Amino acid sequence: MWPDWLAEQAATRAAAGLTRALHPRGPDDAITDLAGNDYLGLSRHPDVRHAAAEAALVWGGGAGASRLVTGTLTLHTELERELADWLGQPAALLFSTGYHANVSLVSALADRDAHVISDAHIHASLVDAVRLSRAQLTVVPHNDVAAVRAALASNPGRRTLVLAESIYSVLGDEAPLVPLARACAEHGAWLVVDEAHGLGVHGAGLVHARGLASHPNVVVTATLSKSLGSQGGAVLGPPDLVDHLVNRARPFIFDTGLAPAATAAALAAARIARARPELAATIHTRIAALAERLEVPRPAGAVLSVPMPSPAVAVATQAEVLAEGVRVGCFRPPSVPDGISRLRITASGGVADDDWERATKVLDAAVRRAREAGRR
Amino acid sequence: MWPDWLAEQAATRAAAGLTRALHPRGPDDAITDLAGNDYLGLSRHPDVRHAAAEAALVWGGGAGASRLVTGTLTLHTELERELADWLGQPAALLFSTGYHANVSLVSALADRDAHVISDAHIHASLVDAVRLSRAQLTVVPHNDVAAVRAALASNPGRRTLVLAESIYSVLGDEAPLVPLARACAEHGAWLVVDEAHGLGVHGAGLVHARGLASHPNVVVTATLSKSLGSQGGAVLGPPDLVDHLVNRARPFIFDTGLAPAATAAALAAARIARARPELAATIHTRIAALAERLEVPRPAGAVLSVPMPSPAVAVATQAEVLAEGVRVGCFRPPSVPDGISRLRITASGGVADDDWERATKVLDAAVRRAREAGRR
Repeated sequence: MWPDWLAEQAATRAAAGLTRALHPRGPDDAITDLAGNDYLGLSRHPDVRHAAAEAALVWGGGAGASRLVTGTLTLHTELERELADWLGQPAALLFSTGYHANVSLVSALADRDAHVISDAHIHASLVDAVRLSRAQLTVVPHNDVAAVRAALASNPGRRTLVLAESIYSVLGDEAPLVPLARACAEHGAWLVVDEAHGLGVHGAGLVHARGLASHPNVVVTATLSKSLGSQGGAVLGPPDLVDHLVNRARPFIFDTGLAPAATAAALAAARIARARPELAATIHTRIAALAERLEVPRPAGAVLSVPMPSPAVAVATQAEVLAEGVRVGCFRPPSVPDGISRLRITASGGVADDDWERATKVLDAAVRRAREAGRR
Repeated sequence: MWPDWLAEQAATRAAAGLTRALHPRGPDDAITDLAGNDYLGLSRHPDVRHAAAEAALVWGGGAGASRLVTGTLTLHTELERELADWLGQPAALLFSTGYHANVSLVSALADRDAHVISDAHIHASLVDAVRLSRAQLTVVPHNDVAAVRAALASNPGRRTLVLAESIYSVLGDEAPLVPLARACAEHGAWLVVDEAHGLGVHGAGLVHARGLASHPNVVVTATLSKSLGSQGGAVLGPPDLVDHLVNRARPFIFDTGLAPAATAAALAAARIARARPELAATIHTRIAALAERLEVPRPAGAVLSVPMPSPAVAVATQAEVLAEGVRVGCFRPPSVPDGISRLRITASGGVADDDWERATKVLDAAVRRAREAGRR
């Protein structure tokens, strides 16, 4: 039964041109990587590498147990303090992935009696989190504050979470955080902001940049695997929220603590990102120039989203630029919220100036060819 | 609204004596750790530490992207091959936590048309996975093969998963894998076996030890964070299953790849565990002796579960032995399947003989006092 079903599923994917495969890379290939999320290039920064290596030597390979048993290291506490301090939040709690942070936060707060209002473009981890929570769900159109207000007003007196990302992964646009926070405050709701693509790219994140750090109605989640070049996630907010998660968040309680090397890598990266704001400035200069050149809207974050005429053209264009030494991402259904396939180009601050210049030329030519192909 | 609700929840926990808190530890405390899941002591093995450190230096702090983008490293492929070869499985796929492996496997296979038959004692990650899948769920009594057969017969012709752990975490007992696999084969179902507590403790795991490796109706999940002393998880089974997960498992697709240091640590640990079966033999000798001394049934794995008269006595006993330099775990509701609080004692092969001898004396005396307290 199962083998037949798997074969059918694979055939359906193949017929739709949506088969995905893994392409392993070595530690040092000659490709200019504009596909990943290592926005500041910190994963490969010498201080980050050495901090991770030192932690592995001192602490060993793993945390050895759940955070609640013997898996809480003083190294975890140190990173939690650093992140809370940097982001201007009273407290922080680490998780072994960003996925766990989102699933933990939402499923430990929202229950059958709660209401969750979710932007249509939120990340898969938040979608899964809501499903696990069994809360009532209202999905509102992307970045539509009026729709959020209407949903809040429709359920007065109910414990409500509003879910947003500071910068959305696929379109690269920014959430209207200030009006969302105001709407939440008026209704006693909490705004959950995923800073996956905002932290580091905008200093201490967009919540901080918009003056909303420690706002009583705003809670933040973050990943350690993007600008911080490591692995893991965090929730930042009031101490009573952290206590609640320690006691109730299933992916926190029933999971092994974040590995020492990953913890130390994120700690070193956070300290570099705080001390060197010019790393993020490079991203913004580059992405503005590339957006103009490719004639697409300038995004809020480090990622330029370039619509392609079809999934097939998107894949072909990705292969073309790879053959010329430039790796970009390619988003196809079902990973796009609106069914439009895209190239996803990261203006990584970790790429050398020469490589960036060469890559933009390759991309410019390839995108023009793709658009021609779409018109034919 | 949220602050009041959090305060109420905290008060309820406090009134029930079930408040949990984190207790950070340093890299080298003088405590004998019989609480963690580093069953073979490999997290701190010099080869594992050095492999993790070397990987951090060579590869950097993180994988930098989803496995599907640029986050698949040749290091991942190497560990996937090693695990598949060791466990006698055709293929393997890594995940950044064991939680992700379980959630991915079940939620990518089971849908509304599927039937999941779950042992009553399965891990939280499998419970969450079933909830996410929206499959029809039948929970059967613990280790009850007849109940599994009845559930299979009740839904003929439906795609069905049967969920079990090779060794259960809290009670430490073994699943009847051979009769479960036979029942699944008769009905075209797949048996999913979580080897979290079996791998390393029983060589290549209990599925392998019971002659079920590569059985067409048996799929395995494993963690890298217990016997392998690192972080992460894996699914092992046929290549078409791995392809399906690569294409459909949301926590695989929408998560950053496992960090290089964690991958290398698990790879080094797997090689040590394969080459040195005597490490596991220590566990079994120790646990048999301790079970006899504490007058509890001998478990199948590395963990001795000692029932306590109450949550309060369990916590007090845990504190008592810690004051004497021995750290053990303490399971209380809601982390126990039957409401009985327990001490959880790991017979770790990584503890020196002298420390183990001293610890068993401390435990013997404390457990006797706890039982006295329970009788009063």
